[in-house]
Amino acid sequence: MKTRFRKKLISAALFVALTLIATVALAADPLPSWNDGKAKQSIISFVEQVTKEGSPDFVPVAERIATFDNDGTLWGEQPMYFQLFFALDRVKALAPKHPEWKTKEPFASLLKGDVKSALKGGEAAIGQIVMATHAGMTTGEFDQIVKDWITTAKHPVTKKPYTEMVYQPMLELLDYLRANGFKTYIVSGGGVGFMRPWAEKVYGIPPEQVIGSSGKLKFDLRGGKPVLVKLPEINSIDDKAGKPINIQQHIGRRPIAAFGNSDGDLQMLQWTTAGNGARLALIVHHTDPVREYAYDRKSPVGKLDKALDAATANGWTVVDMKNDWKLIYPFEKK
Amino acid sequence: MKTRFRKKLISAALFVALTLIATVALAADPLPSWNDGKAKQSIISFVEQVTKEGSPDFVPVAERIATFDNDGTLWGEQPMYFQLFFALDRVKALAPKHPEWKTKEPFASLLKGDVKSALKGGEAAIGQIVMATHAGMTTGEFDQIVKDWITTAKHPVTKKPYTEMVYQPMLELLDYLRANGFKTYIVSGGGVGFMRPWAEKVYGIPPEQVIGSSGKLKFDLRGGKPVLVKLPEINSIDDKAGKPINIQQHIGRRPIAAFGNSDGDLQMLQWTTAGNGARLALIVHHTDPVREYAYDRKSPVGKLDKALDAATANGWTVVDMKNDWKLIYPFEKK
Repeated sequence: MKTRFRKKLISAALFVALTLIATVALAADPLPSWNDGKAKQSIISFVEQVTKEGSPDFVPVAERIATFDNDGTLWGEQPMYFQLFFALDRVKALAPKHPEWKTKEPFASLLKGDVKSALKGGEAAIGQIVMATHAGMTTGEFDQIVKDWITTAKHPVTKKPYTEMVYQPMLELLDYLRANGFKTYIVSGGGVGFMRPWAEKVYGIPPEQVIGSSGKLKFDLRGGKPVLVKLPEINSIDDKAGKPINIQQHIGRRPIAAFGNSDGDLQMLQWTTAGNGARLALIVHHTDPVREYAYDRKSPVGKLDKALDAATANGWTVVDMKNDWKLIYPFEKK
Repeated sequence: MKTRFRKKLISAALFVALTLIATVALAADPLPSWNDGKAKQSIISFVEQVTKEGSPDFVPVAERIATFDNDGTLWGEQPMYFQLFFALDRVKALAPKHPEWKTKEPFASLLKGDVKSALKGGEAAIGQIVMATHAGMTTGEFDQIVKDWITTAKHPVTKKPYTEMVYQPMLELLDYLRANGFKTYIVSGGGVGFMRPWAEKVYGIPPEQVIGSSGKLKFDLRGGKPVLVKLPEINSIDDKAGKPINIQQHIGRRPIAAFGNSDGDLQMLQWTTAGNGARLALIVHHTDPVREYAYDRKSPVGKLDKALDAATANGWTVVDMKNDWKLIYPFEKK
């Protein structure tokens, strides 16, 4: 009897020990959708370096600022920026109130479903479309319009909601950084009012940590009640040199880690890595034509040319989506 | 023996009980420098209301945003804005490099020590002084200039460093709100680059939670190293209607509590209280000519007129500094 009891005890202890080991092993991989390789290793090394107390590269929690581009870095941007799909849907919804659009470009082509012709006018055409759809209402009204759209709209190729077309490995990276005391920010060329209504739910990033392009606002009293009206005037374009500028205006601290995917992120990566101490600069390179898209130097959307050269020259981390990521989207999980 | 033991036990139990009661009583006053009265009670009632789970006015931690004006609300603003003393000191320091200032107003008068004549030019004169002293260097250089000044400069009347001329009751209020899950922000007409270098140490408010007036920035590469240069152009004036606008641009959530002391805070208080659910709007009324200053409707600095009427009309909390505050400055503590 005694021997049998001892055996039971040993097997129970073994079971507990194995469970513990398994738990620790699982906990030890904070980035399960990342294949082992240089990219994953550079992230983990950096985080260990800056969080290890007593290390020369240790960074206090308050200074662990990480900034993420959104389009092409946290979610997709092909065949065109998702916010542009939103704007096109808004043009259609608003068309009955704008009979003049039937003959006025870029609206006339858009309403005929001819996006290509509509966008022939380049940035000026896009500006007209954005102003017509992103201004003229209160911030509260716009918030509701975005919420309604984002819960119903589907991507033209995958037929998935846009909020599901976020990159699973990047979601894990956001969680991993936050678990290590980082404050995670979005610093995107996209509109701040377009991202805030869903960024907290989808990325765990609260409105006050979303920085983006913005229009001017006007304070007004309507029937004694204050409102903020969105004006058709640019306040800030949060792209290229605008990124470090807005990081300074909003955060007032230099990030120690920055993540992007295009030339629009180059100055943010330069600004981040020019600080003292350990820094992480990472570029998501879209190299997977099967599971996602493959594009870089010649792409009209998310052009990655100078920033790719800078990555080579400066030893920044370049993520090869095809080889570094086990999964692209969360819905691929079985 | 048994009786004596019982007595000892009872007295020990009593001691423990009394100690506990004393501890709880101490812990129960989170605002020890505030006299009991309507102002203190309105703060405590509000905090209890929004933090009590299950209450109809409960607010989740993420939405507990509190915004504070700085000049006249968190620190003094008499006999003139402290940042103006900084600018005047900078004019003197920069004068050797600007021989033309000897004959050019408002600099000529300033350099003769005649501040009154210098400021006769009103906002235009102040604008010239600010631009000459707050632009033309990198953000890093300006940061260091402010740090050097704030550690050495003294207030002309009290001869104390400006960072000691903060209001002890407001420091307790900041702590009390943060202990209850609030995120505390500065939303000030003062310059954001002037406040950030010391706000974390003095108020416990990190740079990313400091919103203020700002100049435009320019991204530049100097010898391959990126810098942000402060331009002599206004980016945003964070006063009056500018306050709710900047709250929206930076935070993207409506505060549930706001604190000010002048007409420059009126729109922030209106915006805050127009939201649904329990709201706290508080005005610091400078009523103490002995320990601090007494001024309101006719003061050129920190004019409190329309906002005082609005407080009466809307039932906002008005702090009577003379009667509501036991202490004004931390250095009064014995």
